[in-house]
Amino acid sequence: MDRIPILRLGRFLLVTIQVDMHDRLALTLQDDLTEQIVSSRARGVLIDISALDIVDSFIGRMLANIASMARILDAETVVVGMQPSVAITLVELGLSLPGIRTALNVDRGMDLLRASGESEDPTSGSRELT
Amino acid sequence: MDRIPILRLGRFLLVTIQVDMHDRLALTLQDDLTEQIVSSRARGVLIDISALDIVDSFIGRMLANIASMARILDAETVVVGMQPSVAITLVELGLSLPGIRTALNVDRGMDLLRASGESEDPTSGSRELT
Repeated sequence: MDRIPILRLGRFLLVTIQVDMHDRLALTLQDDLTEQIVSSRARGVLIDISALDIVDSFIGRMLANIASMARILDAETVVVGMQPSVAITLVELGLSLPGIRTALNVDRGMDLLRASGESEDPTSGSRELT
Repeated sequence: MDRIPILRLGRFLLVTIQVDMHDRLALTLQDDLTEQIVSSRARGVLIDISALDIVDSFIGRMLANIASMARILDAETVVVGMQPSVAITLVELGLSLPGIRTALNVDRGMDLLRASGESEDPTSGSRELT
């Protein structure tokens, strides 16, 4: 497995992480995802981590990087499907996933993305990077 | 990785196959999926195979089994995201995936499921198994 598939769901992109992440795979995912955000004009990215039993600082940093890159490209990122034990471990390790929004599952994550898309002022046009 | 995550998307379930399938994983997926169809009252199952470079007779049989089981539980199955090279190989091998509906991507697969759900007679109630 050399890349993680990115699925398009309407205006959003969905990534399901099922395999052990390593450096090269994380870089490929970042490349693919940023390209897809631009080519599909996606407004949001959903990252499902329900298959992960462990979220360590490497995964946490990768998620934060993806969220930052997506934000610059004007797309919101929501991490969904976190296992209860992962949430416990993250807090115990002092990893609070700064800058990452979470939701219980894909449905709720899409609701969150839709709500944040609607709350933006439609007259303001695209956000400027300052 | 001992199981493949099943994501709920409204009335549908989405499975992304990213890892090499083997007997036990396929059985676990069948168990999980049939359970989820019942517990979430799903009307459709989307199986994304965009990460697969090869679909052999084992995978073909697994997909056909899942589609048959889902059908008995009154849910339609659509396989989405097939790579062009996979389609070529399947035809060359004489594997035509009988009983399996396909769509280009998740969005089109969901359209297909929605359309087939609407075309059913709402007064007829649940289908009977004969």
